[in-house]
Amino acid sequence: MYIPADFDQSDPAAIAELCAASPLATLVVMTSHGMVANHIPLLAEGDGFIGHVALANPLHHDVTPDMPALAIFTAADWYVSPNWYPSKAQTHRAVPTWNYSAVHVHGTLEFSHAESEKRRVVSKLTTHFESQTNGAGGWRMGDAPGDFLKDKLANIVAFRLHVTRIEAKAKLNQNRSHDDVQGVAGEFEKRGNAGLARAMRTGGQSE
Amino acid sequence: MYIPADFDQSDPAAIAELCAASPLATLVVMTSHGMVANHIPLLAEGDGFIGHVALANPLHHDVTPDMPALAIFTAADWYVSPNWYPSKAQTHRAVPTWNYSAVHVHGTLEFSHAESEKRRVVSKLTTHFESQTNGAGGWRMGDAPGDFLKDKLANIVAFRLHVTRIEAKAKLNQNRSHDDVQGVAGEFEKRGNAGLARAMRTGGQSE
Repeated sequence: MYIPADFDQSDPAAIAELCAASPLATLVVMTSHGMVANHIPLLAEGDGFIGHVALANPLHHDVTPDMPALAIFTAADWYVSPNWYPSKAQTHRAVPTWNYSAVHVHGTLEFSHAESEKRRVVSKLTTHFESQTNGAGGWRMGDAPGDFLKDKLANIVAFRLHVTRIEAKAKLNQNRSHDDVQGVAGEFEKRGNAGLARAMRTGGQSE
Repeated sequence: MYIPADFDQSDPAAIAELCAASPLATLVVMTSHGMVANHIPLLAEGDGFIGHVALANPLHHDVTPDMPALAIFTAADWYVSPNWYPSKAQTHRAVPTWNYSAVHVHGTLEFSHAESEKRRVVSKLTTHFESQTNGAGGWRMGDAPGDFLKDKLANIVAFRLHVTRIEAKAKLNQNRSHDDVQGVAGEFEKRGNAGLARAMRTGGQSE
């Protein structure tokens, strides 16, 4: 990813926050029959990420242990009009741009067909997302009948993304004046994108 | 992308709608030094897409005319709790999933350094996004001083994405009963994701 110095996101806490807040990663691999991308929720675990795919998804056949994989996490994004920079009214020296943040995790994939590992991964993902979504009243794997769950587990493959390199970009008008940043953040708020406005006001750093 | 029959999006109008509504594409190429992704607003034009990158972005050096490129457009996504299916209370035969829609445009990239083409591309993108964002009061290229704009154009490279193949997926609980779909859509609405709820209620078809 092209990352000018102003937009380099090197704060590990901000990187982890973005991956946790926007967990549906775009997972891209270059297979022998071309580039293949899938959209898969990933959860950070230790120095890697865990997830699973359908057994019917050819991905786990196509990928070899040393094949490069790229998991892309993206936060909210929005068009930026030059009209929103207070400085524009003075100098007119402004052009449109786009604000966004993204984390690119490069690594390799290790698949597992072991039921114990699949159960562990699904349980961890479920506990995480249910507690986030429904709190103490969240769904548990034990709510489903055992035979049904066994069948569901038989139809997935778990995997771990081993990380080799992370690049991250927070493109949030850091190259503009404080007033211009506040001007754009204010427009984002008015237009219903409070999350992106908040990221701009903290300069992409973790809160 | 793995696309089970229930989730295959083959409606050209719905595909075009998603690309227009979520124009910041993730553009992936496999270069001689690995997989590289950039986040770039793309606008449909004829049977392809147009966009531009910074001159300082090595992408236009790294890409050859026949190198496969993949532009990924994604709409809103959200975790789906089994608790939101009315049928779950009866059968308990439900597991979590994730709802999302994505369009994968496979093709090749043709870069242009000609000022006339760069001006044409920037003007078309600007007119499109400004009229969408600010209506009749939108910013125009003519608002900026000529020398400033000339300098800005000298620092970008325009490109066209020639399309070879499009795959699209609308994973919106189409494999569940009508009541389950409405249950999940209702939860999304309550939780502030009206766009995804609307997509679910139309089954991913264009409106």
